[in-house]
Amino acid sequence: MQNPTPRYGYFGPEGTFTHQALLSVPHADRAEQTPYLSVAACLDAVRDGEVDAGLVPIENSVEGGVSATLDNLTYGRPLMITREVLLPVQFTLFARPGTRLDEVRCVVTHPHAAAQCRDWLAANVPAATITTEGSTAAAAAAVADPESGFDAAVCSQIAGELHKLTPLATEIADNTSAVTRFILLRRPAPVGRPTGADKTSLVLFMKIDHSGALLELLEQFASRGVNLCRIESRPTKTALGSYCFAIDAEGHIDDERLAEAMMGLHRVSAQVIFLGSYPRADATQPDILAGTTNSDYTAARDWLNHLRNPG
Amino acid sequence: MQNPTPRYGYFGPEGTFTHQALLSVPHADRAEQTPYLSVAACLDAVRDGEVDAGLVPIENSVEGGVSATLDNLTYGRPLMITREVLLPVQFTLFARPGTRLDEVRCVVTHPHAAAQCRDWLAANVPAATITTEGSTAAAAAAVADPESGFDAAVCSQIAGELHKLTPLATEIADNTSAVTRFILLRRPAPVGRPTGADKTSLVLFMKIDHSGALLELLEQFASRGVNLCRIESRPTKTALGSYCFAIDAEGHIDDERLAEAMMGLHRVSAQVIFLGSYPRADATQPDILAGTTNSDYTAARDWLNHLRNPG
Amino acid sequence: MQNPTPRYGYFGPEGTFTHQALLSVPHADRAEQTPYLSVAACLDAVRDGEVDAGLVPIENSVEGGVSATLDNLTYGRPLMITREVLLPVQFTLFARPGTRLDEVRCVVTHPHAAAQCRDWLAANVPAATITTEGSTAAAAAAVADPESGFDAAVCSQIAGELHKLTPLATEIADNTSAVTRFILLRRPAPVGRPTGADKTSLVLFMKIDHSGALLELLEQFASRGVNLCRIESRPTKTALGSYCFAIDAEGHIDDERLAEAMMGLHRVSAQVIFLGSYPRADATQPDILAGTTNSDYTAARDWLNHLRNPG
Amino acid sequence: MQNPTPRYGYFGPEGTFTHQALLSVPHADRAEQTPYLSVAACLDAVRDGEVDAGLVPIENSVEGGVSATLDNLTYGRPLMITREVLLPVQFTLFARPGTRLDEVRCVVTHPHAAAQCRDWLAANVPAATITTEGSTAAAAAAVADPESGFDAAVCSQIAGELHKLTPLATEIADNTSAVTRFILLRRPAPVGRPTGADKTSLVLFMKIDHSGALLELLEQFASRGVNLCRIESRPTKTALGSYCFAIDAEGHIDDERLAEAMMGLHRVSAQVIFLGSYPRADATQPDILAGTTNSDYTAARDWLNHLRNPG
Repeated sequence: MQNPTPRYGYFGPEGTFTHQALLSVPHADRAEQTPYLSVAACLDAVRDGEVDAGLVPIENSVEGGVSATLDNLTYGRPLMITREVLLPVQFTLFARPGTRLDEVRCVVTHPHAAAQCRDWLAANVPAATITTEGSTAAAAAAVADPESGFDAAVCSQIAGELHKLTPLATEIADNTSAVTRFILLRRPAPVGRPTGADKTSLVLFMKIDHSGALLELLEQFASRGVNLCRIESRPTKTALGSYCFAIDAEGHIDDERLAEAMMGLHRVSAQVIFLGSYPRADATQPDILAGTTNSDYTAARDWLNHLRNPG
Repeated sequence: MQNPTPRYGYFGPEGTFTHQALLSVPHADRAEQTPYLSVAACLDAVRDGEVDAGLVPIENSVEGGVSATLDNLTYGRPLMITREVLLPVQFTLFARPGTRLDEVRCVVTHPHAAAQCRDWLAANVPAATITTEGSTAAAAAAVADPESGFDAAVCSQIAGELHKLTPLATEIADNTSAVTRFILLRRPAPVGRPTGADKTSLVLFMKIDHSGALLELLEQFASRGVNLCRIESRPTKTALGSYCFAIDAEGHIDDERLAEAMMGLHRVSAQVIFLGSYPRADATQPDILAGTTNSDYTAARDWLNHLRNPG
Repeated sequence: MQNPTPRYGYFGPEGTFTHQALLSVPHADRAEQTPYLSVAACLDAVRDGEVDAGLVPIENSVEGGVSATLDNLTYGRPLMITREVLLPVQFTLFARPGTRLDEVRCVVTHPHAAAQCRDWLAANVPAATITTEGSTAAAAAAVADPESGFDAAVCSQIAGELHKLTPLATEIADNTSAVTRFILLRRPAPVGRPTGADKTSLVLFMKIDHSGALLELLEQFASRGVNLCRIESRPTKTALGSYCFAIDAEGHIDDERLAEAMMGLHRVSAQVIFLGSYPRADATQPDILAGTTNSDYTAARDWLNHLRNPG
Repeated sequence: MQNPTPRYGYFGPEGTFTHQALLSVPHADRAEQTPYLSVAACLDAVRDGEVDAGLVPIENSVEGGVSATLDNLTYGRPLMITREVLLPVQFTLFARPGTRLDEVRCVVTHPHAAAQCRDWLAANVPAATITTEGSTAAAAAAVADPESGFDAAVCSQIAGELHKLTPLATEIADNTSAVTRFILLRRPAPVGRPTGADKTSLVLFMKIDHSGALLELLEQFASRGVNLCRIESRPTKTALGSYCFAIDAEGHIDDERLAEAMMGLHRVSAQVIFLGSYPRADATQPDILAGTTNSDYTAARDWLNHLRNPG
């Protein structure tokens, strides 16, 4: 019998933005939720079967972890992305119940959060000193202690609630359009079905490092009509100046155009790491170029087979 | 029971360079050889079953026919190339037995042959007038008639022999490196086996005519590691300024890299005409890029299938 | 003082389609018109100053000469294209005055013309025998002689008129959309001004012959937004299997996008032969991609200079 | 008169790895060194003239700041990179003088440092609890206070020295090959001279977001023979799913190949932000492809000018 309660790990401690993001994962509310103090610890817990899945940041995170996630997936034991979560980068100013905004003299938060709310803090609590902690969650925990000397924390909604704090102001980030992206990882298993709005994540190591090598890789996508969502070159661990590429491509491994591009990459690259095909969080349907649907691929295969065996 | 005597047509009349080229086709010596006065007539004879195969010029021909061949294959009923023949462009000066070189006053030949031997003729028969005929074969026939007034013909070896003439000088072309290419056409049938040194001929019609469309087509070859032997843009019959492309690619339709490129072209082009896979006359082995052998393709397919079904 | 009468050579003899095409060159009517029996002879007459300009076929010619033209321009002393002429491939059936169509028993023409009018001849003079000559002009000359035994010639309009023949039927080509392209060549001189609808002809020799080399050349055009009108690979004279490329590109050497592409080709090719920039015969304005006008180039240069010297 | 003492800002507080990296900047030892608690504050201090230059992390930083740096340079008032600094990611375990390794019960550090030394800590101080702070510098400061309850800090060499701590163990990172990259920024000024081993940083906004747009951009580099060191797609602030590209290219704006590529990008992109040309920290000489040296560019320009004006 299957374990009736799913077990989810996340990049903690409790109250981080990753914890906040976990709330939007279906059924997370009835799951065991275990914080891990590093991305590596969280992902190893997935690999070792301590948890069924782990949520970690992969792009534009307030509390870091992005490089650690990508490197861990690249060099660690295989894991598979099964979901992505997008979370607007937003902060709330929390205080102990009874504290008024004009009483705030000492604010504590993560350094990145302090930087991202600088203008708001300067305008709204101009006299306050800003102190930093290792996470916004730790900042909220500190404020919860009346002996701490801190009046308010800049943190996630969930961190304030966890520590029974009261919001003094919401949405206080200076730039209101930033979004953090998280990914949910599981042990390798059959890939989920295509939804029509999917994304596939790959890491590519190139055989050669000459001018135009990246171009050749991109042509593997372009010649099959596969659009890229994101590309990032990462230094490899083996040689300074040697790079691998983290790529998010539109489509699903069951889409013929992406499958053929992946096989092409497999042939010309030193290594292709498949990190999974999963639904896009924004549910955007891709623009599929003329000639690149599954039925176009099937028609082309039928045509070729007929040429080979015209009988 | 199969017809024991193969029937070959060729672009005639008897004695043309196409006739000369036919001699190097295996078993042509025991075949019925039928000349046709136009490429179209020869190819229709193949289509209609009058002959089993037809030899016509396709590149750099002395006596023309190249455009006619390509247009006929592009717009006519399907035919398939099963062999190519290369013939050095060489001419012999033939006269009736008894005529000496210093007695030659009147030379007759095809205008292109006259142009290609101009320097030799000026140096060796400086006083001779040059008259032109519709083919070098017709020129040889004319010289054979003592009443014609012609002393010598510039023609192929076979034309001179047919008309029982005597060679006065051989290899008289001014440029000794030109080569004419001929192709042998049959009715569509299963493609012959790969030899490892094969060529595949295609005609491509593009959907669009914008800058970069040709580039996109070429990327279909390049992204699979397929080298091109020859490319020629041809105006289409439908619109001035609209072009199709005649392409000879290295490899055989049974080579996975070429098959995948062809399927890619089928998807993105308005039309792909497959004219056949056949052994290269020069037997040159292709340089196969790393990652593009059949076993690389098989390994990539196995890898993908394993990702899709990791069980 | 300049010679008041321009002297034009053409690929003859008198009455060829090249002669016909010459009539559409401005001021040709008041020029000395000299036929040459080969493309090479005509082009050497230009080089040697016997004539001011020479008209020869370059694409899809009825009477051949295309390969000779391209090879001559590639390997011969420099010449420059200053004009192109397009002529629909059309034939007229001419006879001596008094001959009726139903009296035609013996037709003479060039073999290519015979092939291109085959259906019409079969339908309209079914009982006639077809004999070939070295040019349609020679066929018309033969018909003019009542002793020749020929009743009618398939030839150009001008050939019939020259020999005072009477047209029995016009526009008798089976395919009515073919067009022959001719070019007018002069000794090298400053290039004419851009008209906004220009074409530039180049011959490229590649340094290397690997897969993708052609692709690299095409990227030199594509990355500057230059569209190609025509591309043809030609075997080089130096090695079998080695190819050069004859290219017609949209635009004028004074257009910045084409100039930069040409400089790029100069850098990466073994040799670039510039054959001239000249007005398109069809006067088609090119689609100029965003970012590729002369003013876009100037703006980019200004931006760069400002970055280099921000003062 | 120029200020005799250079003023450098850096991403602080005192003792961060950015502070450590600043030590390798020439003349930094005699400069005023001012820490700023965020990347934004540091860069604004440069813009406002409080400091002459500011050092901030740009790639793979232990203490974050990478996204903040890139976004600030992309969207903030112009600045120019004049130097890059590479620092191996290494950590030292520091304690108060007199503390022995086997006495360490409580370790404090930044969360990323804790993650990167996890194996070493588990092996060498297995009984210790790990507490996190907002920076490794703050951790060192905490340890310096005997009342803090912390025995040791994982931090940079300079942080330990600043707080007069004693190293218990050096080079304790689990992965010894990681490198952080920092950049030194100044107000816009004339670009420094090429050294032959230079790098140029750009941010590109694309006009269009279709499949192949990235490919088109890369062709702007490839067609000029410019190799890329690094490419990263970044979401734009304006639309989810819209990306810009942060690119480090080999070469200097005074190199003709890079200058032409930049002008090409200027023409086809919505915006190109030039962040500077500066010496590579690793002093690696680029592989310069045949045909792409400055003298190749000059020769191509001379050739073109001669074609345009053959006199």
